[in-house]
Formats: sequence, structure tokens, C-alpha cells
Amino acid sequence: MVKINPDRLLSDLRTLRTFGTYKTGVHRPTYSDIDMQSRRWLVERMTDASLTATIDGIGNVIGRSPAPGPKLLLGSHVETQPHGGWLDGAMGVIFAIEMARAVAEDPALQDCGVDAAAWADEEGHYMSFIGSRSFIGDVTEAEIDGVESKHDGTPLRDALASAGLAGLPRAVLEADRYLGFLEAHIEQGPTLESMAQKIGVVTSIVGTWQYEIIAEGIQNHAGTTAMSLRRDAGRALIKLAHAIDQHFPEIAAERSVWTVGDLRLEPGAPAIVPGRARMLFQFRDADPRQLARFAAAFDDLVAAVAADDPCSITAKQLSASTPSLMHPGFQDALSAAAEQHVPGLHQRMPSGAGHDAQILANVMPAGMMFIPSIGGISHHWSEDSDEADIVIGGQVLATAVGDILAKGRA
Amino acid sequence: MVKINPDRLLSDLRTLRTFGTYKTGVHRPTYSDIDMQSRRWLVERMTDASLTATIDGIGNVIGRSPAPGPKLLLGSHVETQPHGGWLDGAMGVIFAIEMARAVAEDPALQDCGVDAAAWADEEGHYMSFIGSRSFIGDVTEAEIDGVESKHDGTPLRDALASAGLAGLPRAVLEADRYLGFLEAHIEQGPTLESMAQKIGVVTSIVGTWQYEIIAEGIQNHAGTTAMSLRRDAGRALIKLAHAIDQHFPEIAAERSVWTVGDLRLEPGAPAIVPGRARMLFQFRDADPRQLARFAAAFDDLVAAVAADDPCSITAKQLSASTPSLMHPGFQDALSAAAEQHVPGLHQRMPSGAGHDAQILANVMPAGMMFIPSIGGISHHWSEDSDEADIVIGGQVLATAVGDILAKGRA
Repeated sequence: MVKINPDRLLSDLRTLRTFGTYKTGVHRPTYSDIDMQSRRWLVERMTDASLTATIDGIGNVIGRSPAPGPKLLLGSHVETQPHGGWLDGAMGVIFAIEMARAVAEDPALQDCGVDAAAWADEEGHYMSFIGSRSFIGDVTEAEIDGVESKHDGTPLRDALASAGLAGLPRAVLEADRYLGFLEAHIEQGPTLESMAQKIGVVTSIVGTWQYEIIAEGIQNHAGTTAMSLRRDAGRALIKLAHAIDQHFPEIAAERSVWTVGDLRLEPGAPAIVPGRARMLFQFRDADPRQLARFAAAFDDLVAAVAADDPCSITAKQLSASTPSLMHPGFQDALSAAAEQHVPGLHQRMPSGAGHDAQILANVMPAGMMFIPSIGGISHHWSEDSDEADIVIGGQVLATAVGDILAKGRA
Repeated sequence: MVKINPDRLLSDLRTLRTFGTYKTGVHRPTYSDIDMQSRRWLVERMTDASLTATIDGIGNVIGRSPAPGPKLLLGSHVETQPHGGWLDGAMGVIFAIEMARAVAEDPALQDCGVDAAAWADEEGHYMSFIGSRSFIGDVTEAEIDGVESKHDGTPLRDALASAGLAGLPRAVLEADRYLGFLEAHIEQGPTLESMAQKIGVVTSIVGTWQYEIIAEGIQNHAGTTAMSLRRDAGRALIKLAHAIDQHFPEIAAERSVWTVGDLRLEPGAPAIVPGRARMLFQFRDADPRQLARFAAAFDDLVAAVAADDPCSITAKQLSASTPSLMHPGFQDALSAAAEQHVPGLHQRMPSGAGHDAQILANVMPAGMMFIPSIGGISHHWSEDSDEADIVIGGQVLATAVGDILAKGRA
């Protein structure tokens, strides 16, 4: 059995936490100085693990094993959400390096290897998943030309140049190198904790469909404009948001979620009838048919509110990702490993959050494993997990990795 | 009959428009450099009109007539809404100066006089009506200490110091100096234009009751937090706003208005369940009983939504002004003057907007006169009125002023 070194794993994880510490969390936006420092440190750690490590032209850190036999690719992302948590992404990257070391130390697996990856910008400071998408050959130079920072509009090209990445080649998947891809991650939700379980074996990663809705009315004085003459853009979108919250529960599947994450009234002053309003809306589900059902219902609601309101309302689909199924053989290997180390304390579950594994799943078998998040909190500096749970997760993953590699010889 | 000089009036109005020009409108926030420049220019114009003019410790510009006999106080405000119109307030100030000049030039009124005032911050960049309230003795030094900019939190004390007003005395109404206060203003609504009328004689100024509503929930990941576990602060306030829009029409009076002017979800990101949300809500009516009816209904709706929602919701009343009745004798004088110059093209009407006249009405007879707004537009840089309508308004006001002053001798 592949055995991890818990102290080495936790020590690396704690060191990575020091790159951009914010309260008990981390602020490490993609391509920032501190983010690039963390990537250069990862190159060192991978090199120490006997991997041949480089940072590629989109910021991916990839360490390649010299092993001649079966190989797995493991990884996650290293940048954080703004003022985010210390484990979201980071844990999966350190797990990948620890798996490379543990496999290399296992006498029974000397022909086998693990490559480790830290994908760039899964969190979408510029564009979600651009690192893993680049790796599978899904990103053109023209697309990179068109991307800019969501925070301050900096062109991605300028950010890459400032980070010292301009002109570097982008790493591309070598055909048939891997048995597949595995990613470990914190759950970022309360399910495992609330059921007192230690391991979640991911069955699928949800698809997320995202919309921007704009209402255009007429801005005017809130005291002198009679109600019957108003074209209040804020009221129009409040009506739409409320209609969604009334109707979506009736057509939702058990694990469907939908969110109005932002709603802005312009100009946003107490004595002015809003002339323009903007709403961001998204829904998620693991079933493509459910996503289609939501999309049709959403279109109907927009049409119904628009037909009945003096404002013009337009909805634009910003993104529509496809749900990804995790490989059944990898699910079985993870479940068997969990049953060995924490019998009865694991379950299969979909992932409500997006992960790089959904990108890699397009080109090879992919699997994902969750450990519990304290209070289910994530995307916040207070995000945390019990260190004992981190160690259990590492050992379960190592056992599954050993199992998959050994079977991969056949 | 008191006669205005239309060219002189329009020339002053056009000059005032140059202080902070923005497109065809004006951006002149209270106590900004450009606002203070405009106030110093008003001192010059008042001095040229033989008034003794000063800027007081709250920024009011007041010009006093040397006439020994009956006197009226006229005025409005000179600062604008952010990127607002060129006439809102400004017209009433220039009308006041023109009335002072026209009365001084009238051989039949040599003993009579007009004092002109430009009140500070009617628009509430710091605190609505603080200038006129200070003048009637309604503002303490402690209140000034507690006020800050609604835009950037600058303490009012700092703004007064930067504007060179620190330590200056605040002008206070001299008992029995005036027959009353008159204010001319653009309508800021479409009523006069839509009825092809030239003059509105204001019967009352509505009361405005304003609330800040805060919902506190829990910020979390929009993919991993099940709907049943969410405490979505945005959804809570959307529910409240929608409930208001459903219920208020059932209990509204004919001219009642209500407005959700702002709604903010925090942090306002597409993939985060909002943990906090803030809404600004106001309603207006000329009838105190209707205001009380709305307030009771609003309290009930907040309680009902809060009882049914996992978020905590708190509503704070920010302000509650009392409707003001305009003086019947002043209404009659304005109607008679309008009938003389534009027979049949005038009407009596309430004011949906708040005006300094509602403050002065607490301590003396007050009257207000409207001229038409093109398209009813105001609080926007495109606000405008026909110059011919401005001149008609000036002459109607002058006739009424002459009538009131002459009768005031008795």
C-alpha cells in the first residue's frame, strides 16, 4: 500500500498558506506577485520530489515523473478567491506532490509514477479553468487576447507579461501518457460534516449556467413621477427575481441550486427611480436535462415579466458548462480505499462546485475525492478543515492511486 | 406692476450653468470647489443687486435688502444632484435675485424689498435641507458633528473647513422681518407639460418617509450550499421589495408614490450566496394619514417576511418629513398673477418633491410656484425647460411678489 508522510504533507500545506496570508485565510489572486512566488515554490517542491517541473505560458505548474510505466496525473489549482480560504485548490496541489513522493517511495510501484499539476486560474480572476483548458488544447491565442481581469480590466496578456510568462510555451497533454486524472478537494459544503463522514467520492460535477439580465427603464425623480408613468428598471428585475424564486422550487431536482448573486439598481439613490438595473443569475445541476428544464423556465419567466412591464428586459447567457461524469472505475477505487481506512464513513455525492477535473474529464478518465469542510464554509477566509481529516484524505487518495496504478500495468 | 428683465435673468441663469457643466447639465455637489465658486459668484450678483450678501457658516448665501418697509424672502438651493440638471434649485435662486432687482427698480415699491437666499444642501449630499433648517434654528452644532458625506463618508465638519466656512456664524431668521417666503422651481414631473399649462401653484409639499432595510444571512458557495440550508440575504430583500409592490397599490392614495431606490447584495458575486443585503425605500404623500397608513403596512410586511425567512431583517427609519401646506393667500396671489399673464394656463397642484419652502413654512407663510419641465425629466443632466416658460414664470412671480408686498404695507 502506498503510504503518505503526514508531517511532510501538512508541513508543505502550512508553508503554502504563508503565500498571501489574510487573517486565517489567503489572498492570492492569479498572476499576482504572491501567486507567482507560490508557483515558483511549487516548482522547487516538485523538483525535490524528483519531478521535472516547469511553469508554462499560462501559469500552469506541471511536474513530470521519470517513471517508465503507468502514470496518473493529479492536481488542482493554487490561486485563491479574493480573501479566500487556505485549502480550496491548495490542498489538491500538495496532495498531488505528496502522491508523487509516496508512489516513488513504494517499493512495489517503482515503474509507476504520478505527475503533479497546479492549474492556473480555476477561480476565474481572468477566466475560469483557463489553465486546465489550455492543457487539453481548448484555448486559442485569440481567446487569450480577448480576456481581461474581472477586478480591474487588466488584459490577460499584460498580466502574463508582468508575471514573466510572455512567450513561454503552453504545456499540452501528451497522448496516452496517463491512466487518468485525480483531484482531491475540500467539499466546500456541509454534507460530509453533517453526516459525520470523512470522504466524499464524487460521482459527477454539476453544470453551471450563468446569465446577465439587464432592464432598461427611465431614470426620474422619485417624488414627482406618478406610479402609472414609471419605467422602474429595479422593480422589473425584482419582479423577475421573485418569479424565479416562486417557480424554480416547483421544477427543481433534489440537488438543484439557483442563485441571484448580484442585483444593481442605477443610479442607486434613494430619491431616484432606477433607470437601469443588472442582475447576475445562475443555476447548477448534474443532469443536463434539468439544466435544459431550468433554462426553458427561465426564458419563459423573462418573457412573461417583460411582456407585463414597461421596461425592456434582455437576458444574455454568459456561460453554460456541461456536467461531467466521474469515471466509474476511479469512483470504485476511491470508495474501496475509503472503506479500508474509514469504514462506513464515506459516501458518493455530486459536486456542486466546478473543478478542474471536469475539464480533464473531457480527454481522459477523471475522479475526485472530497474531505469535510468545517461548517461547510468556503470562498471565505474562515474556510477550514480538521488536520486529521486532511491526513485521512491523503491516505485514502494514496491507497486509491496505488490501486489504480497497479491495475494499470495490465 | 413689478417687471423683470428677461435678458438679465436668462444671462445670470446661463452663467450659473457654467459652474460645473456636465453634458447639458451640471455636476455641483455641496461644498465642492465648484459649488463654493458658484456661491461666491452669487454673493457678487447679490451685491450688484444692492443686497448686503454673505456666505454663512453652513454655506447659505443670503442677500439682505436695505429697504425699510415690507419684505419677502425668496430663494432655493444652488448645489445640484450628481450629474443633475441646470435648473433644479438654480432657477429659484436666480429668480430671487431678479425679484430683488425688479422690486428695487419699481417706482411704486421703493420702501419694499426682497431678500435672496441660496440654501445649502437641499439635495442632501450631506443632509437634506441643512441650510434652510439651520436658518430657522433647527440645527444644533452636535447634529453637524454627526453628519458625513453620503458619497465618501467625509465628515461635514471637514467639508465645511475645506470650503472655508469653519468658524463662520450661521445666519438665523430675524423675527418679523418677512411677510413670508416664496420659492420658484421647475416642476420635475410631467403634469404641467402634459396639460399644456405654464404655471403650477403649489398647494402642499408631500412628506417623505425613508427607510434603510438590512438583511443578514450567511455568505456561502452558490454551488455547494443546498437551497434548504441557505440564508440568502438578497432573496430576503427581493421578497420584501416584491411584497411592497404587491400590497402598496391596494392602499395608496391617488398621488402616493413609493420607490426602492437602491438594493445591494454583498459581496455581489455570481457564485456566492449573498450574506448581507441593503435596501433603501421611501414613500411620499401630502396627507399625514396616508403616510401613517403606509408606515404601518411597511412594518407589517417587514415582520411578515422576517417571520418566514431564515435571515434577520431590520428596518430603520432614516427620515420622516411632515407634509407642508402652502399659505392660501400666497396661493391666491400666484394664481391671480398667472391668470393675468397666461389666462387659463395654470393650475393648483401638490409638490411630490421636497423643497426648502417646506422648511420655511414651519416659521412663516410660504408659497411655491412651478414652471413646466420638458418631458418631466429631472435629477438627470438632460433636465430642461423652455426659456420662454422660464421668462413667463419670472414675470408671474414678480407680479405676485409686487402684489404681496403692496398688500403688506397695510
